[in-house]
Amino acid sequence: MNVNGRPTRTIWLSRDETHVAIIDQTRLPHEFATAQLNTLADAAHAIRAMLVRGAPLIGATAAWGMWLALRSDDSDAALAHAYSTLLATRPTAVNLRWALDRVQAEVAPLAPGVRAAAAQRLAMDVCEEDLLLNRGIAAAGLPLIQAHAARKAPGGRVNILTHCNAGWLAAVDVGMATAPIYAAHDAGIAVHVWVDETRPRNQGASLTAWELLNHGVPHTVIADNAGGHLMQHGEVDLVIVGTDRTTADGDVCNKIGTYLKALAAHDNLSLIHI
Amino acid sequence: MNVNGRPTRTIWLSRDETHVAIIDQTRLPHEFATAQLNTLADAAHAIRAMLVRGAPLIGATAAWGMWLALRSDDSDAALAHAYSTLLATRPTAVNLRWALDRVQAEVAPLAPGVRAAAAQRLAMDVCEEDLLLNRGIAAAGLPLIQAHAARKAPGGRVNILTHCNAGWLAAVDVGMATAPIYAAHDAGIAVHVWVDETRPRNQGASLTAWELLNHGVPHTVIADNAGGHLMQHGEVDLVIVGTDRTTADGDVCNKIGTYLKALAAHDNLSLIHI
Repeated sequence: MNVNGRPTRTIWLSRDETHVAIIDQTRLPHEFATAQLNTLADAAHAIRAMLVRGAPLIGATAAWGMWLALRSDDSDAALAHAYSTLLATRPTAVNLRWALDRVQAEVAPLAPGVRAAAAQRLAMDVCEEDLLLNRGIAAAGLPLIQAHAARKAPGGRVNILTHCNAGWLAAVDVGMATAPIYAAHDAGIAVHVWVDETRPRNQGASLTAWELLNHGVPHTVIADNAGGHLMQHGEVDLVIVGTDRTTADGDVCNKIGTYLKALAAHDNLSLIHI
Repeated sequence: MNVNGRPTRTIWLSRDETHVAIIDQTRLPHEFATAQLNTLADAAHAIRAMLVRGAPLIGATAAWGMWLALRSDDSDAALAHAYSTLLATRPTAVNLRWALDRVQAEVAPLAPGVRAAAAQRLAMDVCEEDLLLNRGIAAAGLPLIQAHAARKAPGGRVNILTHCNAGWLAAVDVGMATAPIYAAHDAGIAVHVWVDETRPRNQGASLTAWELLNHGVPHTVIADNAGGHLMQHGEVDLVIVGTDRTTADGDVCNKIGTYLKALAAHDNLSLIHI
């Protein structure tokens, strides 16, 4: 998505392929700074210290961390060490373990000498697949926003509440919960986003608002307490949030506070079937 | 209630009756400081700048503000000016207008010369009646906490969630939503309070937690987002909150975020009829 008018990702291989670059998200929203990951320790630190955060981005960073480890030592011992080091960085959504398992499963059977190249390719695959998945979320959610837009009086806008940051800063690009919002905005639909501050870490105020600002999407940061009141007064059309885990029944585990918004949405918002 | 082990009120007439003293609540929780109100302007500033806050305390401060005005000029014009100045200080619960109306109605028919003394007596009445009302809340709520305590296993504690500050800092003394909690604690019941931080002004983290700490009541400050999760996991027995306005049907208007907790309590907590 756009930062200072330039398409940007959260993580990328440097053009000369000497290192992995990331947006240092601990500096947002006050400063847009990038950081270099040159070693396994750099990647582990980036996850642990939340320079990167968000399940998909943590997974992508872990995959790149495996490459950074293997390019300096691709022995079985180094592979196992990289796996366990990265797995211990954060208790988080499934993506971290999933990315590590994937790299390990594909790289372990290979002979030393070709493991690093395979890990690099896999890390790139993890990133590209993230974009495809998120474009899928955008395509799935856009009709919902369009349906609400079609009900609006001329000049009306679709008001969408979101919690935490399930945006492109939590992924590689495109966004997750916010992907349909960006797609709607880019398609010329008038949208406005209520951004939950998201205490205690303020990911909404610090990250989602920064994302939306940089991409030019109208938005308002609100106290987490305000969402129910806004719903009661018809100021919210949709609530779109992330999911750390989703059960087969469709139940969702997500950032603390999501449940309170779900209860209020259940009582106040009308479902549109598309 | 106790501050540094000493019984303390939020507002009082100085012993020599030269001024009104208040706790400067803008300095809490970092500093316990008092301020002097000597004039109408001082009283209006104290309300406007939130040195005092909480509906009952605002009402009491307004009543004292009328006395401060009238003791220097008790003409009809001064009375009207004091009334309108104090009424304009804050859009808040009914107590501000109620206290002003009460003083004006009783003082206006009196001859100049005795108006200030009457206003002083009325301001004292407003404060003493606040204590009586709050002792009534304590008496009404205590059996609810006792009923929960009676269900607990030995060593168990009654977990009570509260939002914002409907404590003694919002009144003259005793507490409002917190009055039954203090009564239970003082009666030897093991209670623990989940204190909603209460964004955006943090009255829970800054004021309620400070109150409870000074009175020795076990408590934990939590992000406003956490209450629903705690209820889902059986960690909350009761929710006790204030009410800015209460309708004849029992509906309540209160600090932003109360509604979200009410929805979660409705879905998760069991009612005990006493």
